[in-house]
Formats: sequence, C-alpha cells, structure tokens
Amino acid sequence: MIEKLALIGIGLIGSSIARGARAAGLARTIAIATRREETLAEARALGLGDIYTTDAAEAVEGADLVILCSPVGTYETIARQIAGALKPGAIVSDVGSVKAHVIASIAPHMPDNVHLVPGHPLAGTEHSGPSAGFADLFQNRWCVLTPTEGTDPEAVETLSAFWRGLGSNVEIMEAGHHDLVLAITSHVPHLVAYNIVGTVADLEAHTQSEVIKFSASGFRDFTRIAASDPVMWRDVFLTNRDAVLEMLGRFLEDLSVLQRAVRMGDGEALEALFTRTRAIRRSIIAAGQETAAPDFGRQHGAAKPDAE
Amino acid sequence: MIEKLALIGIGLIGSSIARGARAAGLARTIAIATRREETLAEARALGLGDIYTTDAAEAVEGADLVILCSPVGTYETIARQIAGALKPGAIVSDVGSVKAHVIASIAPHMPDNVHLVPGHPLAGTEHSGPSAGFADLFQNRWCVLTPTEGTDPEAVETLSAFWRGLGSNVEIMEAGHHDLVLAITSHVPHLVAYNIVGTVADLEAHTQSEVIKFSASGFRDFTRIAASDPVMWRDVFLTNRDAVLEMLGRFLEDLSVLQRAVRMGDGEALEALFTRTRAIRRSIIAAGQETAAPDFGRQHGAAKPDAE
Repeated sequence: MIEKLALIGIGLIGSSIARGARAAGLARTIAIATRREETLAEARALGLGDIYTTDAAEAVEGADLVILCSPVGTYETIARQIAGALKPGAIVSDVGSVKAHVIASIAPHMPDNVHLVPGHPLAGTEHSGPSAGFADLFQNRWCVLTPTEGTDPEAVETLSAFWRGLGSNVEIMEAGHHDLVLAITSHVPHLVAYNIVGTVADLEAHTQSEVIKFSASGFRDFTRIAASDPVMWRDVFLTNRDAVLEMLGRFLEDLSVLQRAVRMGDGEALEALFTRTRAIRRSIIAAGQETAAPDFGRQHGAAKPDAE
Repeated sequence: MIEKLALIGIGLIGSSIARGARAAGLARTIAIATRREETLAEARALGLGDIYTTDAAEAVEGADLVILCSPVGTYETIARQIAGALKPGAIVSDVGSVKAHVIASIAPHMPDNVHLVPGHPLAGTEHSGPSAGFADLFQNRWCVLTPTEGTDPEAVETLSAFWRGLGSNVEIMEAGHHDLVLAITSHVPHLVAYNIVGTVADLEAHTQSEVIKFSASGFRDFTRIAASDPVMWRDVFLTNRDAVLEMLGRFLEDLSVLQRAVRMGDGEALEALFTRTRAIRRSIIAAGQETAAPDFGRQHGAAKPDAE
C-alpha cells in the first residue's frame, strides 16, 4: 500500500492507473496534476483522485510514488518543476514508450535521495483522455521496468508490486534493449500504419470514399493503429530515432525483396513468406497476447452501413 | 430462388455462401465441388450441400448459378473443365480478390450462351477451410460485381439479388477500377503486414521471443492480417501486379518522406500526419465498416499469458 501516489498527467494511462489503484486499494491518497484546467475538471468529475492541481510540484509533495503519465516530450520540464518538492526516498517513475531518452531527460534533475525507476506498461487502446481509461487496462499485460545500474532493489520491488497489483506481469530490462524491441514491436508498426492511412488521405476524393467503403478488406485494421494520440507518437519518434531508423531500415530492405518478387511474379517466394508468417501469429496466441477468435472477435452483422 | 447453385471450391468463402444460401432459402439444390477428397469429406460432414463431387464439370451440370470459390490461380483450369457442361443461360461468377485478370482467364473459355458476372465479396476472416465459414459473414458487407460491357442486365440483377439475400450491399464497378481500389485497401496492407511479420521472423531468437511477448503494443494487429491463406494471397499478387506496384510505389514514396522526418527530428511534420489520419478512421466508423469499441472490442483481462 502506497501512502501517497502522485500522477502527473491523467490521460488514458494515468486515469487507468488511478482507477486500477483505487479498485485494488494500492494507494491511500491519489494526487492528480495536469497542466490544462479542462482536463483537470474532467478528472475531478470522474472522481479519479483525492487531490487535484495544475501544479506538478504541489502534487508530488509528500508523495511516496510519483508517476509521469504525460507525453515524453514534457518530461524534462516536469522533472525540473518537481525536483525541489520531492520527498526524500520517493520513487519517481513514468509510463513512456521510450526509455533511454527518458532516463537522459529526467535523471540529471533528480536529487540523490530519490529513486528513479522508469517504467513502460505495454497496454493501451486507440482512445485518449481521462474518460478513456479503465481499471483493468493492465490486466495480464506486461509492464517493463528499466532501472539503471545501482538502483535500490527495494525501490524496484515496491514499484513491481504496485504494477502486479494493477494486474500486470513485470519484466526488468536494460533501457536500450527495451527501445530496440519496442521499435519493431510497436513504433515501426505505428509508423507504417500512419503512413498507409496518409497515402489514402492523398487519393482523390472519389477513390478515397471507395477505400473507406471497402475498408473491411484490410485497411481498417491499420486505421485503428493510426488513431492513437498524435502528440504521444510524435514524441516517440523524436526520442527513439536511432532504434526506429534501424528497424525501419530492415523493414524497407525486406519490402524491396518482396516488391521485386511481385514484379518478377515469383509465386514461390511469395507463398513461402506468407506461410512462414503464420507461425509467428500462433506463438502470439499461445503466449496469451491475442485472441484466436476471427477478426479479433468483432461482431459480424452488427454494424449497419449508411445508405448510399 | 436459384434452382441449382454450384460452388467450385468450399473454403471460408464457399462454405459461408453455402450456409448463408441455405439459411436464407436462396437455392433449392447446392452442388459442391472441390479437388481434394479430404476437403470434400469435411464439407459433407458439415452438411453444407446436397451434391458432393471432385469433378467440377459434374457439379455445374444443370446449374443456374455457378460460383468459383477456389484460389484465383485455379480459375483458368476450372473454366476449361466446366465450359462444355454449362447449361445455356447459366450465370458464372466468382469471389476472387482481383477482377481484370479473372475476366481475362475465364471469359475466353465461356460459351456464348452463358453470362459471366465476376464478383468479389469484401468479407473474410484470417481463418481458412470449410469449417471456418459462417452464414452471416456477408451481412452488411459489400459485394462488388464487375460485369463487362454488354452483359445481360437481367443476369446481373439475379446475381445482385442473390448477394443481397446473403445480407450484402451490392456495388457495380469496372474491373480495372476495382483492382486499383483494392490494391490500396487490401493488397498493399496485406503485403506490408506480411513483410513486417517476416522482418520479425528474421530477428535472433531471444529478441523474437520478446517481440512476441510484447506484441500487444501494435505488432499483433499485423499478425492477424498476415495470417490469411498463403495460396490465395500469392495469387492476388501474381494477378494484380500492376495495381499493387502502383500503390506500393506511392506508399514507399510517402514512407521515405516520413523516414526523413524521423531522421531530421521534424516533430511538426510527424504530428501533422498523425493528426490527419484520425479523420479517415472516423469516416470508416461513420460508414459502419468498423466498431468504435477500443481495441476492436477485444476482451481485456480475459487472456492469460503463459508463466515465464
């Protein structure tokens, strides 16, 4: 049980932590700070915490655990703001999708007597804002912690216990390795999805309306991925540049080979790749990270298209 | 009501047509032909039709509507086999994802007294085979028909009524235009999804297992798309080469611009694209082609990952 938890930022992830912590009795007092009055009012209306403020320094006063839940690009400013208000022995963590950069932008500002334990819950939906959160978002998902060498093991264990309390499985990893794995698991897929949706947005209006009409044939799955928060994703690509470019380079090399196979009509090469990729999906289902239900378990026959 | 319906091929689509036609009383007799004894036995065990044969010519005898539901690569052979057995006035259609090539490979073999009306139901899941089908697969989905100029309007209307009976919305389109729209809506997304899963398959084993573990962060959505039938997809790329290369070219141009924005740290350009793509998704939801439920409405907290 954490005596006082401070959440800086209260979007999808922050509000899910607040709800989950409340539901599981993980924190006695929850302080919520966010820059925009409007967002704060929404959090208050939802009853997500006990203390509401637009001042991050005020929120972290006396807090045992402080979690930054705002876009990664805001971290350095927030680190400067809260540094002087942190309680000795406090744990400072975050939920950012990139870890090496986060350590570089927060660590220099932290007093010696607090414990920095960066974190990344691998969970989310394409929706944003305080209302989008829900208590079991982290249930059976992974949370990666990337403490630097020499971090107090007790602080790491306290934070691990907190995430386990939210239903997560916790994994400890080196920050740079995390960034490389996430580049191919998450960042390049998002970049590619945003890109193809952008290509469609550039088609002339008549063709674009047909693409929307016929989107069930594959395209719509990309639009879900490409509907995530723009500012969060901008920051991901600004802060994990090298790993993203490395993995994007591999992806593009492979795509050139595939493009050539299409041009040359190399059916054997195409079928071989299309068969090989099925094994990866089976592994993901076996690992409990996905449902085997067709179409993600979407309801069929439920939606009704507009009349022409 | 069709007196006799012949389905050549009885995978996901063929078996869904059989079930849907039976459920809605659209055909008095359903004849099922498939090359492999094993698949035929499966169709018989499921009770999908009234007549079962491995001989396509036998199945089409006396049939009023013949629908080819096998991979596109088999069409020319089947067209040759059935040509002599078709009843005068019969409608011959198909469900292939590519239309110009299909017309080129079937039309030359058709007798003058039958009506060729190619079709493409834009529906499916990532599963294959007779057992994967279900009666409402086509409910509220689109079925595109691409009759050539001079086709008997009555034959087009009969086939349209059949698909409407299966729950589909019918759209008439020129074959070449269909192939271009589908290249960007379906074929390039599948190629890109197969490609990124292939890139992961080439990673060293330790990293690959981490990608699988953390796949909920975006990658798993690509693996669903890349789990579709390999032979069907091989044939799509072999037969819609020009349109796929055209749209893939646009996609790659756009991706180069995006890659450069990442390299140069151009946050404004990234955020602008990421914001613009949201509008496309809203249009798709408004058009009833997708659910707005987070994560496609996947169950949260339901799946359980394997213990480490």
